Amino acid sequence: MKIMLLKRWLVGDPLKSTQLVHERLSKTIALAILSSNSISSVAYATEEILLVLVLAGTAAVAWSIPVSFAILFLIVVLTISYRQIIYEYPEGGGAYVVARSNLGEQPALIGAAALMIDYVLTVAVSTAAGIAALTSAVPSLFEHRVALGLAAIIFMIVVNLRGVRESGKFFAVPTFFGVGMIGVLVGIGIIQAFFGQDVSLSQNNQTAVEDLTLFLIIRSVAAGCTAVTGMEVVSNSVKAFRPPESKNASTTMLHMSLILATLFMGITFLAYHFGIQPKTDETIISQLARLTFGTGSLYYAIQIGTMLLLVLAANSAFAAFPQLASILARDGYMPRQMATFGDRLVFSNGIIILGVIACFLLVLFHGDTHALIPLYAVGVFISFTLSQAGMVRRWLTKNGPHWQTKLMVNGAGAITTGGGVIIIASTKFTHGAWIVFLLIFILVLMFRSIHSHYKAVTEQITLTRDHRPPIPQRNIVIIPISGVDQAVIRAVDYARSHAGEIRAVLVDVDPQATARIQIQWAQWGCGVNLLAIPSPYRSVLKSLLDYVEQVLEKEPDIWVTVVIPEILPAHWWQSILHNQRALLLKTALLFKDRIILIDVPFHLKR
Amino acid sequence: MKIMLLKRWLVGDPLKSTQLVHERLSKTIALAILSSNSISSVAYATEEILLVLVLAGTAAVAWSIPVSFAILFLIVVLTISYRQIIYEYPEGGGAYVVARSNLGEQPALIGAAALMIDYVLTVAVSTAAGIAALTSAVPSLFEHRVALGLAAIIFMIVVNLRGVRESGKFFAVPTFFGVGMIGVLVGIGIIQAFFGQDVSLSQNNQTAVEDLTLFLIIRSVAAGCTAVTGMEVVSNSVKAFRPPESKNASTTMLHMSLILATLFMGITFLAYHFGIQPKTDETIISQLARLTFGTGSLYYAIQIGTMLLLVLAANSAFAAFPQLASILARDGYMPRQMATFGDRLVFSNGIIILGVIACFLLVLFHGDTHALIPLYAVGVFISFTLSQAGMVRRWLTKNGPHWQTKLMVNGAGAITTGGGVIIIASTKFTHGAWIVFLLIFILVLMFRSIHSHYKAVTEQITLTRDHRPPIPQRNIVIIPISGVDQAVIRAVDYARSHAGEIRAVLVDVDPQATARIQIQWAQWGCGVNLLAIPSPYRSVLKSLLDYVEQVLEKEPDIWVTVVIPEILPAHWWQSILHNQRALLLKTALLFKDRIILIDVPFHLKR
Repeated sequence: MKIMLLKRWLVGDPLKSTQLVHERLSKTIALAILSSNSISSVAYATEEILLVLVLAGTAAVAWSIPVSFAILFLIVVLTISYRQIIYEYPEGGGAYVVARSNLGEQPALIGAAALMIDYVLTVAVSTAAGIAALTSAVPSLFEHRVALGLAAIIFMIVVNLRGVRESGKFFAVPTFFGVGMIGVLVGIGIIQAFFGQDVSLSQNNQTAVEDLTLFLIIRSVAAGCTAVTGMEVVSNSVKAFRPPESKNASTTMLHMSLILATLFMGITFLAYHFGIQPKTDETIISQLARLTFGTGSLYYAIQIGTMLLLVLAANSAFAAFPQLASILARDGYMPRQMATFGDRLVFSNGIIILGVIACFLLVLFHGDTHALIPLYAVGVFISFTLSQAGMVRRWLTKNGPHWQTKLMVNGAGAITTGGGVIIIASTKFTHGAWIVFLLIFILVLMFRSIHSHYKAVTEQITLTRDHRPPIPQRNIVIIPISGVDQAVIRAVDYARSHAGEIRAVLVDVDPQATARIQIQWAQWGCGVNLLAIPSPYRSVLKSLLDYVEQVLEKEPDIWVTVVIPEILPAHWWQSILHNQRALLLKTALLFKDRIILIDVPFHLKR
Repeated sequence: MKIMLLKRWLVGDPLKSTQLVHERLSKTIALAILSSNSISSVAYATEEILLVLVLAGTAAVAWSIPVSFAILFLIVVLTISYRQIIYEYPEGGGAYVVARSNLGEQPALIGAAALMIDYVLTVAVSTAAGIAALTSAVPSLFEHRVALGLAAIIFMIVVNLRGVRESGKFFAVPTFFGVGMIGVLVGIGIIQAFFGQDVSLSQNNQTAVEDLTLFLIIRSVAAGCTAVTGMEVVSNSVKAFRPPESKNASTTMLHMSLILATLFMGITFLAYHFGIQPKTDETIISQLARLTFGTGSLYYAIQIGTMLLLVLAANSAFAAFPQLASILARDGYMPRQMATFGDRLVFSNGIIILGVIACFLLVLFHGDTHALIPLYAVGVFISFTLSQAGMVRRWLTKNGPHWQTKLMVNGAGAITTGGGVIIIASTKFTHGAWIVFLLIFILVLMFRSIHSHYKAVTEQITLTRDHRPPIPQRNIVIIPISGVDQAVIRAVDYARSHAGEIRAVLVDVDPQATARIQIQWAQWGCGVNLLAIPSPYRSVLKSLLDYVEQVLEKEPDIWVTVVIPEILPAHWWQSILHNQRALLLKTALLFKDRIILIDVPFHLKR
C-alpha cells in the first residue's frame, strides 16, 4: 500500500481512456518537446568540428566555415524530405514504419534497432553535454558530473511517468529559455563581431599534429553531422499533434529547422571569428559567452539555459522510445507488455528501460560527451538512410501527383544520408561506431527470435476447425494433510465445492500420530475419505509425489487437483517459521501436466 | 534434475527409516567423534596459560604448573558430574534439557543459547587452531590461513550431510592418529626430560610488562579453562550410543577425560621444563616437537596429527548442533523445519547453518585462534554451570538412592564452573566475552518470540468443541480471458469440474476485439457465460479486481474461485515474453479472504 501511495504521489492519478484525445500537443508545446533534441545539438556540434580541424593546427580552423555550409545543406535536405514523410505517414513515420511498409522486414528491423540505440544515446549524450555546460560555469562540480547526470535522468523518468502533456508544459518554459539565451548570445555576438571593438584573445597557437588532408576535412564533416541528430523526432510523433496533424507537424518541423540552422551557423561563425579553440574543461559556448559578456549574470544565464535545453532534449527520446517499443511489441518483435498502456496513458515500461540503460551508459563512459558521440551519429544516419530509401521506393511503386519531384527530394536525402553513414562509419569505426553495428546485429537477432517465439505460441494455442470442445473429464481431488485443524477443515470445505472424488492423504511417519489423526478425522472430516500412505524414506514430500504419480498413471484421462491447506501468517517475516513443505510440494508439482494446484489460505490474525 | 544428481553424488542415497537404529555408534567410533573436541583443546590450552603468565616475565612461567593442577581439578570434577548426568538423562542431557526439566524455561533458554554459541565457536576455534598447526610447519601458508580454514569447514559440511555413521568412520582414523602422535610427543618428551641430555634452548628472556599479581594468576587459570571445552559433548549424545547407552557413554566419557588430563598435564610440564615461550607464528606443540625430534619426519607427523585432530574436532559440533536445534524446534523455540529429518537421517538444515556461521566468524576474526577463544570459554562455562545447577536442584527435589553424595558432586561442579564463569567474564569481558552475553540475550529473545508465535498459531487453528463442521457454501468460478485459444478452453474445461456457477470475464478495452471474441465464444465456450466488463481506466487488472470485489460484496457467504489460464513456455527465459498480467492478478488477489486462485497451465512444447 505504501508503495502504491508513493507511486501515486510521484506519477499522479490514473487517467480515463476518454482523456486520451486531450493529451494531443499544440504546436508550441510540440516545438518544446520534440525539437529540443535537434536544436540542442548546437551546443556540441561546432565543438566536434573544431576538435577534428585543430589537429591540423590553428590555421586549419578556418575550414570550419565551409564544413558548416555542408552541414547546412544537410539540414535543408533533411527538412524537405522529412516534411514529405510527415504527410505520407500521419500515423507517425519513424525509420521502422517507413522501411517496413516499403523495404520489407529486415531493413525495418535494422531501422528499429538503429532508432532504439539512438534514443538511448540521445538521453546519455544530451545529459552529459548538459552537465558539461554546468561544469564549465562551476568547475568545482566537474568531479561530480556522473552523479549529476544520473540525478537528471532519474528526474526525467519520474516526470515522464506522469504523462505526455504534463511533461510538455513542464519542459516548455526552460526549453524556450535555453533556445532564447543561445539566440541572445548569437545575436549580440554577431553585432559585436561586425560593429564592436576588437576583442583580444590570448592566441595560444595549437601545433599541428596531422596534415590538413581531404580526409581530415571529411572527418570534420562527419563530426559535424551530430548537428542534425534528432531531426527525425517530429516525423515519428505526428499522431501526438492536434488536428490537422500533418500540417501542424510540418510547420513545427520547419520552425525547428530554421532555429537549428540559424544557431548552428551563428555559433560556428563566432567561434571562427573570435578564434576560439576547444578545451577539455570548458565548452565552446561557455568560452564564447565569457568573451561576449564577461563572467557576469548574463554569462550564467546562458550556461543555465544551455544546460536546461540539453538535459531536457533527452526528454524527446522519452516520448519517442516507448512509442517505438510499443509499435514493435504490437508487431511481435518486443515483449507484449511493452504494448500495454500504463496508468498514465504512457508506455511506462519503455520509459523505465530507456532511463536505466542511459544511466548505465553514462556511468560506463564517465559522463564524457565526446566518447559517446561517435556511437550516436552512426545510428542516427542509418535510420535517416533507411527512411529516405523507403520513401524513394514508395514513390517508384506508388507514383501519385508530383511523384517525380518527391522522388528527387527523397533521392537526394537518401544519397546524402547514405553518404553520411559511409563517412561516419569509415572515420569513426574504431572510435566506437563498431559497437553500434554489433548492437544493431544483436537487437535484430533478438527481434527475430522474439517474433518466432510468438509465432510458435500462436500456432500452438490457436483453435482450428479440427478442434472439438473438450469432453468433460473426471477430477480427483487430493488434500495432503499432516494433522486436523481449522486450516485443514477450511481446505476440505472448499474441496467439497468440486464435483470430483475427494481424498485426504496423510503420510504415515509416526503410527501413533496417524491413529490420533484418524480419530479426529472421524469427527471433523465432513465425510471425506482419509488415506494413510506409508513413508519408508521418512520423506513426506517424496511419498506424496509418488502417490500423485500413481494416481496419474492409473487413470490417464483425469484431472488431479491437489488442494493445499496453507497457513498465511499475519506478517511476512513469520513465513520462515512455517514448514516449507507446501512450497516444496508446489514446486515439485508445478510443471506436471494434468495436475492443478490449489492453495486454500487460512489467514492468521496475529 | 542436475542439482539433484549433484546432491546425490555429494551426500549419497537417502536411507530408509528402518536403517536408523544401525546408525548407533560403537564406543570406539563414539570416542573418535565425540571426544576429539575435548582432547584437541590440549593443542592450545597450555599456550593460552603461558600467554598470560609471560606478561609478568619469564620467571612467572613457573606458575603454569600450579595453574595446570587447578585445571586438572576442574577436569576431575566435570568428569564425575557429567557421568551422573549421563545416567540421569539417557535421552541426551545437554544444558538445555537439564535446565528445562529442573530450573524452568528462562535458564533453559539461556543454556540453549550458550550451547549454540559454543558449537559455532567450536567449529571456528578448532579449525583456526588446526590451520595454525599447519602454518607452524609450513610458514609460507600463513597468509592463506583464512582460505584454508574455509575449505576445511566446507569439507566438513559435505561429509556431515552424508550421515552420522559414515562421518564417524571417516573421522576415526585421523582422530586416533592425532591423539596418538601427541601421546608419542608427550611420552618421548618426558623420557628425554628425565633421562636424556640437557637440551640447550636459546634463552631470550621476556621482560615483565605486568607485576605477578594474584589477579594475573587467576587470569591464567581463566585462560586455561579452554582445556575443558567440549567435555559436555558426550552427555549430549547418549542416544547415539549402542545399548546399553548410558553405560557405554559413561565409559567413553572416562576414557576421554583420562586422555585429556594426561596430554594436557604432560604438555604443560614439558613446556615449563624446556622453557618454551609462546610465539605469534609458531604453536607451543610445534616448538616442543621441533625441540624433541628436530625438524624431521616425526615432527611433521606430529603437526599433521595435531592439525587433523583439531580440524576434525570441529566435527563434534556438527553432530551436536543439529540435535540441539531439533530439540528446540520440537519445543517450538526454533523454526519447525529444523526438526525435520533430512534425506540422510541427519538434521541437514542445522549442519548447513552451523557451517555457514562458523565460516563467517573465521573470516571476521581473520582465522586467529587467540581472538576467538575469549568468546568460546565464557559460553561453555555458562552451559556447564546451568547443567550442574540443574542437577543440584534435581537431587534436592527427587532425592533417590545416594542423593546426598550425588548432590555434593554436582554441587561441587556447580560451584567450580560458576566460579569459572565469574572469573572468565570478569577477566575477559572487554576481550570479547561481552559479545557472548549480548548474543545470549538476543538468542533468548528470538527463542521466546518464535515460541509465542507458534502458540498464537495453535490457538488460532485448533479445533474446539464449539466448532461445527462447515456448512457447504456456493462457489462462483471466474475465468478472466482476453481471447479464445486452447489455453483458455483448457481452463474452461477444468472449471467445469467444479460444482459452482462459472463465468468467463472479458475486460472490454477495444469494442471491435470484444465483438470478435464473443462470436468465437459462441462456438468454443462450452456453454459457459461470457461477461464483458467495461474498463474506463484502460487497466485490465483494475477492472478485474473491481469486478471480483463486487461479487464478494454482493454475496458475503460464497467462495470465489478465480481460474487463470496460464501459458507455460517450454523454456524458463521465455517467460519474459508473456504478459505478466496473470502474475499481477495473482499477487493482487493472494491475500484476500474467500478467494481461491487456480492456475490451469497450458504447456507449450517449443
